[in-house]
Amino acid sequence: MLYPNIETFIGCESSYEEADMVLYGAPFDSTTSYRPGARFGPAAIRHESYGLETFSPYQEADLCDCRVFDSGDMELCFGSSEAALADIEARAEQILSDGKFPLLLGGEHLVTLGAVRAVLKRHPDLHIIHFDAHADLRDDYLGAGLSHACVLRRCHDLMGDGRIHQFCIRSGDRSEFEFAKQHTDMHRFDFSGLEELTKRLAKAGTPVYLTIDLDCLDPSCFPGTGTPEAGGVSFMELLNAIRTVTKANIAGADINELAPMLDASGVSTAAACKVLRELILALNIRDEGRLYR
Amino acid sequence: MLYPNIETFIGCESSYEEADMVLYGAPFDSTTSYRPGARFGPAAIRHESYGLETFSPYQEADLCDCRVFDSGDMELCFGSSEAALADIEARAEQILSDGKFPLLLGGEHLVTLGAVRAVLKRHPDLHIIHFDAHADLRDDYLGAGLSHACVLRRCHDLMGDGRIHQFCIRSGDRSEFEFAKQHTDMHRFDFSGLEELTKRLAKAGTPVYLTIDLDCLDPSCFPGTGTPEAGGVSFMELLNAIRTVTKANIAGADINELAPMLDASGVSTAAACKVLRELILALNIRDEGRLYR
Amino acid sequence: MLYPNIETFIGCESSYEEADMVLYGAPFDSTTSYRPGARFGPAAIRHESYGLETFSPYQEADLCDCRVFDSGDMELCFGSSEAALADIEARAEQILSDGKFPLLLGGEHLVTLGAVRAVLKRHPDLHIIHFDAHADLRDDYLGAGLSHACVLRRCHDLMGDGRIHQFCIRSGDRSEFEFAKQHTDMHRFDFSGLEELTKRLAKAGTPVYLTIDLDCLDPSCFPGTGTPEAGGVSFMELLNAIRTVTKANIAGADINELAPMLDASGVSTAAACKVLRELILALNIRDEGRLYR
Amino acid sequence: MLYPNIETFIGCESSYEEADMVLYGAPFDSTTSYRPGARFGPAAIRHESYGLETFSPYQEADLCDCRVFDSGDMELCFGSSEAALADIEARAEQILSDGKFPLLLGGEHLVTLGAVRAVLKRHPDLHIIHFDAHADLRDDYLGAGLSHACVLRRCHDLMGDGRIHQFCIRSGDRSEFEFAKQHTDMHRFDFSGLEELTKRLAKAGTPVYLTIDLDCLDPSCFPGTGTPEAGGVSFMELLNAIRTVTKANIAGADINELAPMLDASGVSTAAACKVLRELILALNIRDEGRLYR
Amino acid sequence: MLYPNIETFIGCESSYEEADMVLYGAPFDSTTSYRPGARFGPAAIRHESYGLETFSPYQEADLCDCRVFDSGDMELCFGSSEAALADIEARAEQILSDGKFPLLLGGEHLVTLGAVRAVLKRHPDLHIIHFDAHADLRDDYLGAGLSHACVLRRCHDLMGDGRIHQFCIRSGDRSEFEFAKQHTDMHRFDFSGLEELTKRLAKAGTPVYLTIDLDCLDPSCFPGTGTPEAGGVSFMELLNAIRTVTKANIAGADINELAPMLDASGVSTAAACKVLRELILALNIRDEGRLYR
Amino acid sequence: MLYPNIETFIGCESSYEEADMVLYGAPFDSTTSYRPGARFGPAAIRHESYGLETFSPYQEADLCDCRVFDSGDMELCFGSSEAALADIEARAEQILSDGKFPLLLGGEHLVTLGAVRAVLKRHPDLHIIHFDAHADLRDDYLGAGLSHACVLRRCHDLMGDGRIHQFCIRSGDRSEFEFAKQHTDMHRFDFSGLEELTKRLAKAGTPVYLTIDLDCLDPSCFPGTGTPEAGGVSFMELLNAIRTVTKANIAGADINELAPMLDASGVSTAAACKVLRELILALNIRDEGRLYR
Repeated sequence: MLYPNIETFIGCESSYEEADMVLYGAPFDSTTSYRPGARFGPAAIRHESYGLETFSPYQEADLCDCRVFDSGDMELCFGSSEAALADIEARAEQILSDGKFPLLLGGEHLVTLGAVRAVLKRHPDLHIIHFDAHADLRDDYLGAGLSHACVLRRCHDLMGDGRIHQFCIRSGDRSEFEFAKQHTDMHRFDFSGLEELTKRLAKAGTPVYLTIDLDCLDPSCFPGTGTPEAGGVSFMELLNAIRTVTKANIAGADINELAPMLDASGVSTAAACKVLRELILALNIRDEGRLYR
Repeated sequence: MLYPNIETFIGCESSYEEADMVLYGAPFDSTTSYRPGARFGPAAIRHESYGLETFSPYQEADLCDCRVFDSGDMELCFGSSEAALADIEARAEQILSDGKFPLLLGGEHLVTLGAVRAVLKRHPDLHIIHFDAHADLRDDYLGAGLSHACVLRRCHDLMGDGRIHQFCIRSGDRSEFEFAKQHTDMHRFDFSGLEELTKRLAKAGTPVYLTIDLDCLDPSCFPGTGTPEAGGVSFMELLNAIRTVTKANIAGADINELAPMLDASGVSTAAACKVLRELILALNIRDEGRLYR
Repeated sequence: MLYPNIETFIGCESSYEEADMVLYGAPFDSTTSYRPGARFGPAAIRHESYGLETFSPYQEADLCDCRVFDSGDMELCFGSSEAALADIEARAEQILSDGKFPLLLGGEHLVTLGAVRAVLKRHPDLHIIHFDAHADLRDDYLGAGLSHACVLRRCHDLMGDGRIHQFCIRSGDRSEFEFAKQHTDMHRFDFSGLEELTKRLAKAGTPVYLTIDLDCLDPSCFPGTGTPEAGGVSFMELLNAIRTVTKANIAGADINELAPMLDASGVSTAAACKVLRELILALNIRDEGRLYR
Repeated sequence: MLYPNIETFIGCESSYEEADMVLYGAPFDSTTSYRPGARFGPAAIRHESYGLETFSPYQEADLCDCRVFDSGDMELCFGSSEAALADIEARAEQILSDGKFPLLLGGEHLVTLGAVRAVLKRHPDLHIIHFDAHADLRDDYLGAGLSHACVLRRCHDLMGDGRIHQFCIRSGDRSEFEFAKQHTDMHRFDFSGLEELTKRLAKAGTPVYLTIDLDCLDPSCFPGTGTPEAGGVSFMELLNAIRTVTKANIAGADINELAPMLDASGVSTAAACKVLRELILALNIRDEGRLYR
Repeated sequence: MLYPNIETFIGCESSYEEADMVLYGAPFDSTTSYRPGARFGPAAIRHESYGLETFSPYQEADLCDCRVFDSGDMELCFGSSEAALADIEARAEQILSDGKFPLLLGGEHLVTLGAVRAVLKRHPDLHIIHFDAHADLRDDYLGAGLSHACVLRRCHDLMGDGRIHQFCIRSGDRSEFEFAKQHTDMHRFDFSGLEELTKRLAKAGTPVYLTIDLDCLDPSCFPGTGTPEAGGVSFMELLNAIRTVTKANIAGADINELAPMLDASGVSTAAACKVLRELILALNIRDEGRLYR
Repeated sequence: MLYPNIETFIGCESSYEEADMVLYGAPFDSTTSYRPGARFGPAAIRHESYGLETFSPYQEADLCDCRVFDSGDMELCFGSSEAALADIEARAEQILSDGKFPLLLGGEHLVTLGAVRAVLKRHPDLHIIHFDAHADLRDDYLGAGLSHACVLRRCHDLMGDGRIHQFCIRSGDRSEFEFAKQHTDMHRFDFSGLEELTKRLAKAGTPVYLTIDLDCLDPSCFPGTGTPEAGGVSFMELLNAIRTVTKANIAGADINELAPMLDASGVSTAAACKVLRELILALNIRDEGRLYR
């Protein structure tokens, strides 16, 4: 008897029933205005994870000890952002309603909006912690309100002031930075203030959605993305930030904006795999009593 | 006194007023379902045309003797196909209403629909001649009716049976080939029948829209496209087909689906430049009394 | 309920039990002496087949009407050719013993030896039909008898004179061509003689193993291989040869030597996918009474 | 009415008459001895600047508030360095004589010599501040005195001792480092001493030509250059150095040695665009009474 | 005892004294106006020849039976065409004066001029046979008379009318084609007329210099060159032309314009190696009484 | 008289007899389980060293003052690890027996085992200092005990506990880290402890074999390797570590795991060249009385 070819992120071989956490891929980049290809991000992460170990010497933990199910990529409509977002929201809702943690792999950053809508329904007091090079706070972009460049603005439409916390931001037009001064909690260039914020949110028991645009990383360690922005954080800084932020009550998360076609050497995909491994492990080794269990 | 940096397709330096023909670029690929990047096609054609001569030894003619204006790329909305198509249609209408020939540079193949809408309004008896590897006759694709894979089907919605003539087709699902048997004039694999068709249409004075998906070329000479299909025609076969088909009353035209990111060696962009030069020259050296003048 | 991410060659979604034909991948290239990477061939074919249609307009047939099971890639030992070959042989034997047709995806050409050993045990009167740029008839290469450059010589060790039929050969050292004159049936440069050979073998009911080294194709349409050899056959010539040769009693087959790392544009992988589709369809549309059923 | 396709660096849309600053490109790399391609640098910077914002969160300033004219690339003679340098010098002189600041985009580093000749005529007391990985102090290179490897030596011929200040230097032959000890003010490896130097020059009102070879950056953030040298400065260090040095009386400037063909991921071009934006902004936000106004 | 690392074209291991033929590389491309990199051509041919067999099944001959010496690459001055040409001429003269056949590996096409000058001195009645996509007949290019685009015009300056025979030409400006009508023997697009010409020249005992710009090949089989021109000849057509033309009294030869940086897949370099092997063999298997012995 | 084309690492032009140090290349990567290509490392280092200066401003020393012989690459058997290791061991023994220092260029990391066997025979009290991202301590990998992933484990088989000192390790499975706790001296992530260790070993006069897997470097400065691991050391940290460790009695050394096919920009090869230059210089400028002289 032979078995069909199942391809998952390395070490994520739990059944759906037993899983605590569910990976779901959103291969969508229709609104990417500059260099497209983030649609291939989740498949590349899954495929190239074969080159990664399941064990992390940073956290002394192993994916084999976690219960994670990888549901693969959704089949999304290209050319209709609203249809794609509805499908992503439905998938997140299903995972949440089955009592599991939804971990979304993008795709362009717009996909976050689908997941946030689902998590926000369950947790009306949700905050967002946002790691990114770009503010993503435009009201519209080239005529579209549903655009990667507007995704946090659309989240703000749903959540209001003071509940979006942005880190590493180093690009945007003037209006976005002005909007941020009044409506979001923006930390430019690096992770300054993240530890204090996490402590405060953790103490208050506030549910948090964590969205990681991998272009927060410096292009030197993560060149394979649509809009690389010099002056970013290092891999070790991101790893530390992940270990910090996961002390809050994370209710949902995503990583996005890997564009493998722009990653000739493969180092960006390898880095994305490692970020995902460390994120899964950090979410799993939190002490008991957490929100999503 | 210094002048700003104007970038046009080589030899297309007429003013708009004097021009007989107008190039317009549609850098759009939001519905591309497989490998994106056709958005960068028109800019690459313009930029790399510097490596091309204006003179054609095939036709013994020179772009410098033509009156062509290059209006550059439109700024189109990513994420909304309908908005993008409306802008393309408006641009084509303007060119037509000024008595000039519209030559569109895509972009993914869906952009053709905008141009066809405009030309069809002027010429209700329009036929389409379509060079492509793919039938593009699906009714919908991943839930979208406005998709590159549906563009000729959408044209058929507007025009009805027997007015779409397809050549070089070698890919599609079974339903598309069955649709073609009943509704279009499909010639598989090569240009068989083109000469007879052209004679018939020319004799009848029928206005024709010519749409060239460059992937009709074999991937050996045109690798840089989203969905390469082995078994295509050679460059010389395409050049001959262009010289044949331009004996009909061509009322509008486009070439599309160059994806420069997939063209590491640059030969696809160079070939696209040469196809464009030969198409412009072939359209210009037709004898007098043609439709669009 | 969500399902895990199964990745197969497009349209090959039969269960193992119901399948007539079984794909199995051998991601091995340890003996490749020049440019390695054929190990990634089968995964790339599977992954990129998403860009292919299941329907063939050449054969008017559809993969969805076939019963094919894709068992994915074996986990083979790098650094020990004998261990890898034993695993390949065992997999082929299992498929044969379950009454199914084994279709191997390499990997470097040496993997063929494992499959041939298994098929030869069942069919002691087996012949081999071999499409390749290279003779692969060396007795040893850099000290190794188990090498991609020796694979047909090793087959000859097992089968003796006159039972190996080689086509498209255009590279080898002088001794290989001299060996061929005495011991194999070598047709240089193209498929001359294939039709006659097939008729003769088919008439005699001789079981045939078909091995296709994709570098028989000209590098213009198949650049992505370790040792490209100018002067090869076109895609259409290979397609016709496949449709010819499958009129014989094919008892096992393989395609090999796609090296995706050397295929920057992706056209080689796309061509390999199309060759595989056409091969599966050609094997399936043969009339009844064939050997392997 | 349609307009021709003007391509400038983003936000540099002033008319020549109104402009304070003029960009001019020198697409020349004939003397590059190792990996060529810097000729394509200025066009790539212009083309890819579309992916950049005009606003800088580092300096809280916006290109839209500057008056910059982009005059595109000169058409230079390949194969004659002297002819090319004469054309560059003439262009710089024209810009200076019109009372505007000349900002040159190379090209290989030799192009600096043309600009320096022009600025030196206006400001005989000119100093040069030079950011580079390479000393560029050879007397001749492969028989040519006009070579990228000799450009600062040629400047020294014109200016004499003590007026060339070099930073980040980490490559050269022994004789270059010995020459530097006696004739230039060389600071190895980084920007140590730049702040003090700038203060001194600013206080004295000394006019300064700033030449930035982008390979002063570490290859990790700037791989796309002909001769990458490990051990360079980070993007943030360069940005700070630019903000420091522009407190001197800068009379002319250039950035050079981006080679886009060697920049598969695009991060080098993106970094060059950002360096150029920050340089323009830094030059513009200097307080009143500066030299070139 | 260990030996130093000698790198020659495969099978060219004769000593200089014993050699009949001498390879010499001219790694020069300073006047290349479009995409540079031909300077790396000869080193790539030498390095990648390891992937080639020494035996040719086309000519049933083996490089091991020839006496060829590979003298490696000259160290040429970048930035001075005249100095580089003088060095090439001197090298060719030395080889000729030692009674050996000079086979030059370019580099851009301008290098041919150096070799032609040397051969012409020995054979004042020399003719040139020129395989190329481009006419190379401009009087000057961007101000330079010594340019790749002018090389055959410079040869015409030395030799006069009717002694330059051009094949495969498919690009040039109008003036070049007009010049050719009056002054050279130009055959457009392919090798038509080559057999007749060769017979005539062979019968008359006319010495011939053969210059092969590899871009005469179609970009599908030879993408890795600065200015690819669709519509060229196939590898087999070039091979046949080589076997035809070598029946004349060839007194010197070159192959040029491989640009390995533009050859991501490596097929162009592999094709160049095979062209060189076949050229060496064809020159060696000519019957006795030939000019250069 | 012309000379054959000798290709050595820049500045390594001593004769074998006079040389103190001998470079030898092991172009082997048959056991590489993920992305192959390290076989091309030594040739690329040699070839691209032309872009490097012989002088180091870091150490104020010049390769021209050293006596180094480059013996090129061995011709190793692909497909048999034991045969390849035997050849490497024999080469190292010959160099040692001639009283010279053996400096091996890999290839995959397994090649180290051949060199260590030879050095250990001469120095039974040998220690190993190992710079690497990966622990390489598996007992077997995919069924092979002779694998790149097992190489330090095989060294431990020969040498026992406490004599292997590992630095920069940031990847491995759990069992490898557990093995290291009991049997090796592992320093995770960076070079902490190297200075103390070196002092101790130097004081005791202990002979040391130094093996540098270049993937200890962060992928940002060294992307071109089979298994890039984010979070590595910088080039300057490695350079300092080399200058530190060479104060011990180094009896043999290697650098390995450059994979040029994965190094599109060339920065990894350039970095490897610079590491090799600095390593040679550091080994040469040690004070008198060292082990290997």
